[in-house]
Amino acid sequence: MKVGIIGLGLIGGSMAIDLKRKGFADEVLGVEAEPVNASAAEKIGLVDRVVSLDECVRESDLIVLAVPVGAAVRLLPMVLDRFASDGDGKIVMDVCSTKEHLARSVKYHPCRRQYVASHPMAGTEYSGPWAAMPGLFDGHACIICDSEESSPKAVRCVESLYETLNMRTIYMNSSSHDVHTAYVSHISHVTSFALALTVLDKEKDEKHIFDLASGGFSSTVRLAKSSPDMWTPILSQNRDNVLHVMDTYIEKMQAFRQAIADGDEDAVRGLIEDANKIRRIIR
Amino acid sequence: MKVGIIGLGLIGGSMAIDLKRKGFADEVLGVEAEPVNASAAEKIGLVDRVVSLDECVRESDLIVLAVPVGAAVRLLPMVLDRFASDGDGKIVMDVCSTKEHLARSVKYHPCRRQYVASHPMAGTEYSGPWAAMPGLFDGHACIICDSEESSPKAVRCVESLYETLNMRTIYMNSSSHDVHTAYVSHISHVTSFALALTVLDKEKDEKHIFDLASGGFSSTVRLAKSSPDMWTPILSQNRDNVLHVMDTYIEKMQAFRQAIADGDEDAVRGLIEDANKIRRIIR
Repeated sequence: MKVGIIGLGLIGGSMAIDLKRKGFADEVLGVEAEPVNASAAEKIGLVDRVVSLDECVRESDLIVLAVPVGAAVRLLPMVLDRFASDGDGKIVMDVCSTKEHLARSVKYHPCRRQYVASHPMAGTEYSGPWAAMPGLFDGHACIICDSEESSPKAVRCVESLYETLNMRTIYMNSSSHDVHTAYVSHISHVTSFALALTVLDKEKDEKHIFDLASGGFSSTVRLAKSSPDMWTPILSQNRDNVLHVMDTYIEKMQAFRQAIADGDEDAVRGLIEDANKIRRIIR
Repeated sequence: MKVGIIGLGLIGGSMAIDLKRKGFADEVLGVEAEPVNASAAEKIGLVDRVVSLDECVRESDLIVLAVPVGAAVRLLPMVLDRFASDGDGKIVMDVCSTKEHLARSVKYHPCRRQYVASHPMAGTEYSGPWAAMPGLFDGHACIICDSEESSPKAVRCVESLYETLNMRTIYMNSSSHDVHTAYVSHISHVTSFALALTVLDKEKDEKHIFDLASGGFSSTVRLAKSSPDMWTPILSQNRDNVLHVMDTYIEKMQAFRQAIADGDEDAVRGLIEDANKIRRIIR
């Protein structure tokens, strides 16, 4: 199978490596809008050839949209339009972190069934072709959304791709996906960004504020290194869910604040004990 | 040298292991108020003997207070009182995460110079003697506070202990310590507790909310597993600094919320780019 990957960053690049290495793809074509990234991807050898968008859609059996979700919303209808004129049997999938907006953008497209919405839940805080690595997806969960809107053949192809990457597949609709990811992914990024901003602000007066930063701080602030190109459109497209979770989160912070301000150690202890129940979930 | 460690949890237990293994202590005595922990510490062989507080103070050359800071505030004056009657040349140090309250509690004690205030910046989210491990402190920073209030001999002894543990020592006063740790440690714990509470709340309606939790979520929520016995008194004793940092943090969250609610992608991008500057600090 010939696989075309549009966007050779962390996700697209890592997919390119493993799909070729594991024999899922005979040839991997890559499209990359950013010239620096394109030549890096070629130098590293992430893909067999860097080609134009047109060539990629024309030559590939399966096209993977691995661009930030803002760009995906523009590209997906374009790719399906080309399928309409010359793309019988071709498949396009995306790997974006928000799904409802994207689903809506092609809901009534005549080639909708050639598209599979998916989200591999793997990544790091780094981006670009330099961040790509083999085994990135190994053992993680992957979501296929609204599978009933895609042709069974297209779904089977994408399932087989994720099996190759050693991911376990979960099925849900786009709307439920976006609620879930707001809770277990998007809010974590916002809290890390806010933490980074808080301490960086203090550094303006206290030059050595970071001298004492230890593993705990690094762990909670790690996601604040995440790319604005990726996260600006995610927070925008999942706006309502993210705002709802942020409001709950701010309420919890206010409850903590009040308990500490009141010197109410029983209340503080109670909140910590409740939070400790996360031990059941996270090893 | 005979070292007595009061409190055989993560920190006390890990110190016991390395101080004996590396030859700093000829014998390590341990005191542990919790019977289950005491017998676990004996079974694991963390210390040579588990003894009473009295025996520990009488027999040890150096006493390490490795209990939560609420207990340390009660124990430190007691230990210094015993030094006053029979403790010439003995030294006591603590390892607590807040320092100003403790410093104030013995500021005018006649044996103040036999006490060294310190804080090894190492740990995990686990607690108890089972969590103790060799090498816990290796390569981390350690703070000695208000060293001018301690005798040079006592300071040298504690410096040598931390050299043995392969820590790099930083010096500052208690008040500055408490401001720093509020920013780079305490707030991280509060944000993790609040995150855990937010998602656990949602789990009441959405049983499978955690199915999609990935590495990013685990990383930001990890500290929410931390012990209430340790963290309730820290948040209480560092109340004013912690409240101040929480207020700044909540402001940053509100700014993010507003930008997302307004659909102002430029503002969201600007906040993320500012937060990205943490890359300079955290590798």
